Parts: sequence; C-alpha cells; structure tokens
Amino acid sequence: MKVNEKMAAGEVKITPRDEDYSQWYLDVIFGADLAEYGPTKGSMIIKPSGYALWEKIQNFLDKSFKDMSVQNVYFPMLIPERLLKKEENHVEGFSPEVAVVTYAGGEKLEEALIVRPTSETIMYETFSRWIQSHRDLPLLINQWVNVVRWELRPRLFLRTTEFLWQEGHTAHSNHEEADLFARKILDLYATFAKDIMAIPVILGIKTENEKFAGASKTYCVEAMMQDGKALQFATSHNLGQNFAKAFNIQFTNENNQGSFVWQTSWGLSTRTIGGLIMVHSDDKGLVLPPNIAPIKIVIIPIWNSEESKNLVLKHALGLHDELISEYGNTVVIIDDRDMRSGQKHYQWEKKGIPVRIEIGPRDISGGTVVAVRRDTSKKIVLPALELSRSLRELFTDIQNSLYSKALALRDLKTVDVENWNDFLENIEAGNFIQAYWDGSSETEKKIKEETKATIRCIPFTLEKVPEGKCIYSGNPTAIKVIFARSY
Amino acid sequence: MKVNEKMAAGEVKITPRDEDYSQWYLDVIFGADLAEYGPTKGSMIIKPSGYALWEKIQNFLDKSFKDMSVQNVYFPMLIPERLLKKEENHVEGFSPEVAVVTYAGGEKLEEALIVRPTSETIMYETFSRWIQSHRDLPLLINQWVNVVRWELRPRLFLRTTEFLWQEGHTAHSNHEEADLFARKILDLYATFAKDIMAIPVILGIKTENEKFAGASKTYCVEAMMQDGKALQFATSHNLGQNFAKAFNIQFTNENNQGSFVWQTSWGLSTRTIGGLIMVHSDDKGLVLPPNIAPIKIVIIPIWNSEESKNLVLKHALGLHDELISEYGNTVVIIDDRDMRSGQKHYQWEKKGIPVRIEIGPRDISGGTVVAVRRDTSKKIVLPALELSRSLRELFTDIQNSLYSKALALRDLKTVDVENWNDFLENIEAGNFIQAYWDGSSETEKKIKEETKATIRCIPFTLEKVPEGKCIYSGNPTAIKVIFARSY
Repeated sequence: MKVNEKMAAGEVKITPRDEDYSQWYLDVIFGADLAEYGPTKGSMIIKPSGYALWEKIQNFLDKSFKDMSVQNVYFPMLIPERLLKKEENHVEGFSPEVAVVTYAGGEKLEEALIVRPTSETIMYETFSRWIQSHRDLPLLINQWVNVVRWELRPRLFLRTTEFLWQEGHTAHSNHEEADLFARKILDLYATFAKDIMAIPVILGIKTENEKFAGASKTYCVEAMMQDGKALQFATSHNLGQNFAKAFNIQFTNENNQGSFVWQTSWGLSTRTIGGLIMVHSDDKGLVLPPNIAPIKIVIIPIWNSEESKNLVLKHALGLHDELISEYGNTVVIIDDRDMRSGQKHYQWEKKGIPVRIEIGPRDISGGTVVAVRRDTSKKIVLPALELSRSLRELFTDIQNSLYSKALALRDLKTVDVENWNDFLENIEAGNFIQAYWDGSSETEKKIKEETKATIRCIPFTLEKVPEGKCIYSGNPTAIKVIFARSY
Repeated sequence: MKVNEKMAAGEVKITPRDEDYSQWYLDVIFGADLAEYGPTKGSMIIKPSGYALWEKIQNFLDKSFKDMSVQNVYFPMLIPERLLKKEENHVEGFSPEVAVVTYAGGEKLEEALIVRPTSETIMYETFSRWIQSHRDLPLLINQWVNVVRWELRPRLFLRTTEFLWQEGHTAHSNHEEADLFARKILDLYATFAKDIMAIPVILGIKTENEKFAGASKTYCVEAMMQDGKALQFATSHNLGQNFAKAFNIQFTNENNQGSFVWQTSWGLSTRTIGGLIMVHSDDKGLVLPPNIAPIKIVIIPIWNSEESKNLVLKHALGLHDELISEYGNTVVIIDDRDMRSGQKHYQWEKKGIPVRIEIGPRDISGGTVVAVRRDTSKKIVLPALELSRSLRELFTDIQNSLYSKALALRDLKTVDVENWNDFLENIEAGNFIQAYWDGSSETEKKIKEETKATIRCIPFTLEKVPEGKCIYSGNPTAIKVIFARSY
C-alpha cells in the first residue's frame, strides 16, 4: 500500500508514563489515531486504525466459534422492560446503567424499551419457544453487536457508554456439558489473548460479589496492565438453571421427562483493545504484536541524492511488491514521501507497526535491508533475498518476546502476602496480591472500601491450597485469591 | 457437515402464491427458518440460516469496499437531538420515524438522544474536525451497524423497526469526483445484485419527492418482485454540499482557498434478503442462487436394504469428504437420517439448497450420481468422477438461469403505456409501467393518491427520449419514468 497523509500519525506528543499514566494512555490512542470521544459524554468514535484491530479480533474469534458449531444470529436491540425484569438478580445488576427509549414514531410508548446492556432476557424468552426436545440441544449461538451501559467515569475503549462485543449464548441438556462449554470458551479467550494479543492472562472464578448478575458461576480471564492494575479481559458464565426457570425453558429428554435447560453466556468486547494498548505500548506510542497488527511492515526508502533516489525507490518498490504478494496489500506500507526519515520513524512508531524496513544505497549494493523492531528498537541487517521468510521468523520472535516481557512484569509485580501491612504496601505499589480470604462478602467489601482493591478471581492454579488465615479477618480458610485495583 | 435435526426445516406448509402472496412470503421465511418476529411490534429475530445470508452479503461488499480504499469505522448509535436538526430536509424526513432515549443511568437526560436512523448527522459533525486540507480528501468510510426506523406496517426483512445495513460516507474536493463515486457504488450494488443474488435491476435517479432527505440526487437500484411490485434494493446519494454547509465541513485547496466539501452516502440493508426471497422462491419454498447460498449441496444416500445401506453410506461419505475439501465443511451437508427420502427432499427444498445429490446402489455400480436442481426440479445424471467440476458448471448454469428467468418475467411485466386507462389497467395487473411524466411533484402525488403507484426512478436507459405527453396531465415533457407499486 502506498502511503498517504491520512495514514501517517498526527502531531500528538506522547506524555511519558512516569509523568501521567492516564494521559499517556490517551496520547497513545490519539497518536495512533485509534479512536476519539463522541459528541455525548462517554461515547466513542472508533476510527479506521482502531476498527481494523476489532476486525482482527472478530476474524479470529468468529472462525473459532464456527469451528465449535456456534452459529451467528441477530436479536433486536430494544428489550421490553418486562423481559429485563424476569430474572431478579439480573435486573438488579443492570438497572442502574441502562438507557431507555420512551418515545418512538412520534408517540410515547406504552412500555419502555431498554437498549440492550446484554441480551440474555430477550434471547431466552425466544429460547423457550425454540427448545422443546433434547433434539433441540445443545443450542449454540452468538451475535456481534453494540451494547449500551451508562458509564459515569468513561475512558476510551475501557469504559464507554456504548461498546461493541460478541455475546455467545448456549443451552444444554445437563449441567456438566454446560459447565464444560463455558470452560472451553474461557480457554479460547485465553488462547486468543496469548497467541494473538501476546497478553498473559490468569484464569479463574469470580466471587459471588463480582459475578455476572444472574449467573451461577462466572469464569474470567484477567490481565495485568503495565501500571499493575487488573483488567477483566473476558468472562464466560455458567448460568445454571437460573434463567431457564425465569423464562421457562424446558425440554423433554429421551425418556419423555421434562427438565429445565442448563445455560452459558460469554462475551469479549472492544475493551480488550484498551488492554492491548496498556500491556505493550511505551513512551514512543502504540506497540502492536504482529499477530494483531493490521499493518505489519512499513518500508522506508532512504536516499541522499537525486541519483540515488531513483535507484532506492526502484528497489524499495520491488521489495514492496514482493512483500504484498506474501502478506496482502493492506499489510505492507511504503512511505516514499519527501520528508526526513527521522520524522517518518517518529510517525510510524506512534502507529505501532511491528517492523520498519529501511533501504538505502549501501543496502542495495550489499544485498541487504535493515529491519528495525518496534518493540525493542533493535536494528537487524537481513539479506534482501527471501526477506519474507526472515520476516516471518522475526514476527514470531517479536510476538513471543512481547508475551515474555509482559509475563515477566506480571511475575515481578505479583506478590504473595501474609499480613495486612504488606497488603496495603503492595496495593499502593500497584501489585497483584495473592492472599488468603475467608470467603465472606463482608470481608471482601471492607477490603474494597479500605483499599479500592477487589478480588479479581480465585485462580484455577490456586484452587487447591493448604489452609491458611484470611489476610483481613484472620479467620482460617482454604481460599486463596488475587487482589488488585482494576480498570 | 453431518445433518442434525436443527438444520432440517420444521413443519411449515407453504401457502401457494396464487392463494395468498403475503402469507406465501412469510411461509417461505418460516419454512427456511430464516427469521421470526421479535417481542415488540415490528422487530425481527434473524435466525442462523438468515444471518448466514447476511454474512455472505457482508463478505462480498466489505471486500469490494476495501478494494475501493473505503475503511470501516464505528460511530456512536445515539445522536444528540441538536445534531439531527442541523440539516433542515434531513430532520423533516426522519423525525416521524425515530426512537428516542430520554432516560439513562437512572436519570432523565438533559438532551434527548436519537437512536440512529442513519448516521449523516453524527458523522458529519466529526468530519468538520477531520477535514482541514485537500490532503485529507477524499475521506472514504463505511460502517456495518444496526439502525432504527419506527415502521407502522412491519414485514420481515422488508420493513422492520430495526434493521442491519452498511452505510458508506465519503467527502471529496469537487462535485465531479463525488458524483462519480456515488455512481461507482451504484454500479457495485448492481453487480452484487446480478452476480451474487441473480437479481436483474434497474439503475436510475429518484425524483425530488422520493429522494433521500438532505440529498442533492439519489441514485437507486430497483428490482421487480414476482408479483410485479418494486423493491428499492439500495441507494447511493450525491449529497452535494448540503450537509457540508450545515456542518461547516471546509477544506483549503492547493491554492489555500477554502471550500465546502462534496459528499456522498450510500447503503444496502437486510431488506435485500426480502428481495432475494421474493424474486426466486416458489410454492415449494425458498430458492437460493448458488452464489449466495451458505449451503450449496445436500447429499442424500438412498438404500433399499440393510446390506445396501452400508455400501451406500460409505460411498456417500466419500463423496461428502471430496466435496467439503473443495467447498468447505459448512457448504455441503450429508443427510443420512433414517427417514423416507421424499420427506428429506421436502425439507431441503424449503431451505432452498441449490443442488441435491442422490446416491443409491444403482448409481454406485454405474459410477454416477443424480443431481437435482432446486430451481427447475430437473434431475441430471453426473459421473461420480470429478464431481466437483461438474457441480461448478451446474452452479454457474443455475445462477445464470435464475437471473434469466427473473429478467424474462420483468420484461414480460414491463409495459410502455401512453394513455391513462392503460396505466390503470397495468397497475392493477401488477406491472412496471414506462410512461411520460411532466416532472411536477403535484402530478406525481396525484398519481400516487389515485393508484398507489410511485415513480420508482428515472432510469439511466431512458435519460434521452424524444418529447412526449405526460400520462396524467398531458403536458409536453421529455422525462420518461418507471411507475410501480412497491414494498
């Protein structure tokens, strides 16, 4: 793809993380031209570079869902209020944050319509008609849609009044199958985080306080941002029979006996893009792992005279053609603008392009190119011959090394804590804390009040621990959890 | 793909077209399990088989847009009322059909928010910030989203309170370029209609009465349904500088002079699926052209004894494997249920699968299979060797013959009319009428009042006609148009 002015980043200067982390986050987004705030408070406009990330996410997940026999559907966005109210915990959880349509077609509506914050209620009323017999199970569906949740403290990608997500919903004939399915999806989310976004994650179960409104169990994928705060990356809920009972979703089994179905729901949203930004980016701007980067390579021809210009451009264009035949036209950019190279580098670094290829007269005579990694700024001299193969290896190396770096930071910033003073100190230091918890909601709430730390999850890896004492109450317990402040 | 009960169609009996055309349309949808009405009046649930059609539409168009350098974005769905009001004609056109959010986050909103009926207003306020210089042009963007327009007479796919579409929006530095772009998109929509949906279309311009609220010119793609009614398949608008002036979208040209941009917008929605259904389907149910069919082939093994069953199944599965390696797992179904073949045929016919492959003991010994075309019910004996090549040819033939059949019907039902009595007679007969019109909105409105026929468009093919007399007023005119009743 030939460069044009609109691709190159604007004049945004990136505030260093040390100076102001929140401003740095916004600067990275503006510098890479991913998104901006919309005209109403908390709304977001996702720009082409940001939406291209969402398309990469969609492509990977949608294919994976289809491989699991999940089918896409579309349910109406406007939910009659009476439906939202059918599952008691669910309505309690979502009521404070819904947007409500009261007028339509020039008239006041008889019944208010809720803009979906999630679609359990509108889908499950329908499920009660779709599901009659064990032959109708399992029912496995998904939709890619917008949802609205009114956020008081908006932040681009992480919390916006409207966001994009996929929501999967399944119904099964027994508890084991449903639970297994919820776990299978959780594993898929973790694979996606690791293999595509190079984000190390922790898998576990949410506490009663933190679980999804209406769920029996919420499984979650948690990630650590660079500042040590947690981000809930995705969740997968075992809904038990809660909604099945509220919406009367019954089936008859092989022996003609009636039973309520067992359900799951699971979602991953545009907020993962916020996580992606905060895990990898640096003071120069966005850093993208190659597997999620819509543009992977920018070629910068460098000339020092009018004579060398033609030669260099010719070689650079040849390289460009070779690489787009391998990677596709939109994946490789050639920036042949008449502009200082330093300024070009500065612009493309802000966009997070994983590899920059520099080619000048000396490279041409030597049969080489210089590849510069966005993640480490290291320069590597590569033979121009079979460049796309060398680049594939380089991409793998960058992907792995971004993952390892994030994992190393998380390990460094995860501490096992046994007394309350250490707890307070480590929370202030922005660490993940592994500690015993007595299992009571009261303790959990008090810790949150006093420290703003929440229980991120009970990690699967800590499911079997010897008995210890609760970090707060001192009560004996065999539950060990992860505490952290979170986005 | 192995069959399962959920894929097979239910017990819907298709009402013949002659008996009740509207009921036939619904029966075809229910029989193929494409969609159903949602819990609020006029809302629609798109089921997996229906959504798979939308995905085929998305894949073709999205790739085509990207080839034209159009980039995807996402703008907020909720539009502040003040923005909607900025372009006078636009707000007048859309006000009667909008849905309004008045409460959110537990509070009454200070300013009402309109659920987007289309996104010109929210996008173009932003454009005024994005566009400063000629270097920012052309701006070419698109989004795949849901929109809400409150419909009083809902009909699945054709008119629903919420529907899915793509809306493209572009800004250019001059009128010619903008107009050319709008026309290029129109041609793309026509290509899509013909090559993918096998629907013959008429391209032309809407009258002042019928054009998009706020547009300078509306280009349209019109199609004839089997009952002779018209369906507006897609539209592409040359917006002139109307919105640019309302939203102050200016750029400075190479000579540093300021100017308003020239804009286009264009959209194609899930209503095209309604058109697809009504153009090709028959009294046995849905008929899908191969290029839009998510499932193209169903294999039916036929055995007459337990001994032959194993042999037949083995061969059928071999065929299945061969075809899925060519077409993909989801494109080919094998239906090996223990059930009468006639009943299977009846079910798959309702689903519109283009080709049914029957294989029995005699076919195996003869090295053949029987292919049955959904469109004509004709049986063709094909050699089992190199079956996928024969099938490709068959698909091409089906695609072309569906197009030709629809075109022949349209030709048959399009009449050139020169007096008012013939006009009335032909409108009652459900025909497209080509006739002279004096160009006045008054005449257009009176004809609509008296006959329910509207001017579908001034076709490009009739742009240069000798002078004649208006079919209604008798006034001399050189404008010839197409009148029809429409969906």
